Amino acid sequence: MSQAFDAVEVIRAKRDGHRLSGAQIDWVIDAYTRGAVADEQMSALAMAILLNGMELEEISRWTQAMIRSGTRMDFSALSRPTVDKHSTGGVGDKITLPLAPLVAACGVAVPQLAGRGLGHTGGTLDKLESIPGWRAALSNEELFAQLEDVGAVICAAGEELAPADKKLYALRDVTGTVEAIPLIASSIMSKKIAEGTGALVLDVKVGSGAFMKDVESARQLARTMVDLGTAVGLKTVALLTDMASPLGRTAGNALEVRESIEVLSGGGPADVVDLTVALAREMLAAAGRDGQDPAERLRDGSAMDVWRRMIRSQGGDPDARLSTARDTHDVVAESSGVLASLDAYAVGVAAWRLGAGRARKEDPVQVAAGVEIHVKPGEKVHRGQPLLTLHTDEASRFSRALAALDGAVEVAADGSELTLSPLVIERVS
Amino acid sequence: MSQAFDAVEVIRAKRDGHRLSGAQIDWVIDAYTRGAVADEQMSALAMAILLNGMELEEISRWTQAMIRSGTRMDFSALSRPTVDKHSTGGVGDKITLPLAPLVAACGVAVPQLAGRGLGHTGGTLDKLESIPGWRAALSNEELFAQLEDVGAVICAAGEELAPADKKLYALRDVTGTVEAIPLIASSIMSKKIAEGTGALVLDVKVGSGAFMKDVESARQLARTMVDLGTAVGLKTVALLTDMASPLGRTAGNALEVRESIEVLSGGGPADVVDLTVALAREMLAAAGRDGQDPAERLRDGSAMDVWRRMIRSQGGDPDARLSTARDTHDVVAESSGVLASLDAYAVGVAAWRLGAGRARKEDPVQVAAGVEIHVKPGEKVHRGQPLLTLHTDEASRFSRALAALDGAVEVAADGSELTLSPLVIERVS
Repeated sequence: MSQAFDAVEVIRAKRDGHRLSGAQIDWVIDAYTRGAVADEQMSALAMAILLNGMELEEISRWTQAMIRSGTRMDFSALSRPTVDKHSTGGVGDKITLPLAPLVAACGVAVPQLAGRGLGHTGGTLDKLESIPGWRAALSNEELFAQLEDVGAVICAAGEELAPADKKLYALRDVTGTVEAIPLIASSIMSKKIAEGTGALVLDVKVGSGAFMKDVESARQLARTMVDLGTAVGLKTVALLTDMASPLGRTAGNALEVRESIEVLSGGGPADVVDLTVALAREMLAAAGRDGQDPAERLRDGSAMDVWRRMIRSQGGDPDARLSTARDTHDVVAESSGVLASLDAYAVGVAAWRLGAGRARKEDPVQVAAGVEIHVKPGEKVHRGQPLLTLHTDEASRFSRALAALDGAVEVAADGSELTLSPLVIERVS
Repeated sequence: MSQAFDAVEVIRAKRDGHRLSGAQIDWVIDAYTRGAVADEQMSALAMAILLNGMELEEISRWTQAMIRSGTRMDFSALSRPTVDKHSTGGVGDKITLPLAPLVAACGVAVPQLAGRGLGHTGGTLDKLESIPGWRAALSNEELFAQLEDVGAVICAAGEELAPADKKLYALRDVTGTVEAIPLIASSIMSKKIAEGTGALVLDVKVGSGAFMKDVESARQLARTMVDLGTAVGLKTVALLTDMASPLGRTAGNALEVRESIEVLSGGGPADVVDLTVALAREMLAAAGRDGQDPAERLRDGSAMDVWRRMIRSQGGDPDARLSTARDTHDVVAESSGVLASLDAYAVGVAAWRLGAGRARKEDPVQVAAGVEIHVKPGEKVHRGQPLLTLHTDEASRFSRALAALDGAVEVAADGSELTLSPLVIERVS
């Protein structure tokens, strides 16, 4: 970094709607990582970016600068191709759990460097930690060996992967600057490019339970990320998928692991199975291994075999009994008819308040807390029938969880015409 | 403060273009003063306010909350009315120095709680500190006694006056959020209302050397401040005055004191005299003491008498010799004709770089550094004649000061039609 800038000058440029130069972006990311640009300066810049936007060229440079703040991994020495999937986060989104072993069972390695949950969406690592003995932290040597032997790894991203993004993400979280497409896109893509995956499939969620509430902004985010990947030679495809209602029939940690195991056993809710298979097809195609039927690998038990080896390889016992919650409470239907909608955001907040999620990154999560969903939109409802079961180890949490669910369930008269979103809304490549 | 909010929720509301509620504003100012809202959160909020604005009702509540963060003074026990003047800051703006004693000489007390300079505009206290022995810090008792005895005080605002504003101003300065009309207006008015003055005249500068570069934004700032004052029963009037070129013939600390003494002696540059008299008339009218001729009080020496008593009352020697700079450098005219323009901002930056101003609030200033102006816009120029003399104690500073002046001087052919701004552009009441 030869050129030095003044932080206020860079903030003012974006505040006044100008394009940041490549040198300004390189400097500000490097100086922020080193602590020479203060948190209060970066948060003002993040707000200016959120409100005034960045062009693709700026976002691409920003992404590269965040990658350069740390080390970059390289899986090219592996005997098989690699492909990764990233979801922008939703309620009940446990897809990574069956998906990674499924794709590995089809001969493509999946290096999933994942994060923990913050806010109303759950974290993949939190879910897997409900399996006794399983550990998220692997050394690079362990990661490589497991990818070669088992073909699938879901583990914590190391500190050296895009540290600028880690610092910036924590800042955005407390300053109301999470919802900026340039910052979301560069955050995700910097980690995925630095991770060194050979190809990438993005699951961009749309609806109340997602960051992107409407198709237009989800499409813009997907387009930006696909362009960022393509610009550096990373084969990238995105699916826009529905997050108006929760995915599957569970939201919580152990609850979602149990549902994932059902899917790996050839059962499970149709939407979870369909999305897992759709994403697996995209991943195999992106890795140049299409022409296979991933659904068959769920039915014949080969995906389950990889799951068991993957869990065991990280110290977990795939046969261990998962915790159940101390207390449960049923939410029953107040009328008969057909379930018109079940709001994903409300269910996510309820699960979070029951103890499944954390408010601050140092908070613990409850393994067994969450929401079980008995009726999905489009299904019949009988008055008095349980719609949801709330799970928690602390009964005092029920009242705030129930408050979150106020107005979240809509029952229509039998025979009403419902407008249910398709699971996969659009494909961006 | 009974209701508590979440900082991110407040930031998001303004980010998304909503009106902040009174309770949200009260909470965020109080929590920021207490440290419960972090600097990085307040800077994101300040940027959102800068880009999305605030309505008058919000600004008024914000101002009241900043006043309530500290104590409020009360001069109603004085035997004469009080009136204060505030300038939004310009280059060569020494008006307070002759103005305060002039208005006091007309029978109205002037409690000027002033600040130090930051950036390219000088600070009134820095200027007065070039007088040997003079001290800026007065106790409240000293302030009251001097107001009663002498009628004029120019001193440092105490720590207890709108502490929320002090903290916020320092933050805005490093985060590119100074130039927000709602924040400028509430910052100025919270201090002036808390100060307890009976009436207020605002000098809103317009042009390259001012925060407000165009008449439209200066008018909006003036309107906002007049409305804020009026809303709390403070008689408030604003003049929009020209800051395209520097005021008077000096920019610097001791240099400006010397020029102020010339004005108090009945001489001095016409623009400084005219603006001092115009503001004095407004102040006397606002205090209900109009019908006097302040120009006469400059000519008859009574304003000078008050100046000498005011300086002496704060420990200064009005007869002391003021420092002169170790080194000087002349900028000469490259062609003959008439001076079409002299850029105020460039002269301000040059004076600052010569040592008259500070980059950080803990930096010292040079007493004798600055710029002397030999030719004012509209006056004749002969090739080779000195236009400016630069003063500093460190000759190494000349090169960067000269760089700031590059392109700042425009000489037109003799007989050209010049468009010079009037000194007082508009009155807002």
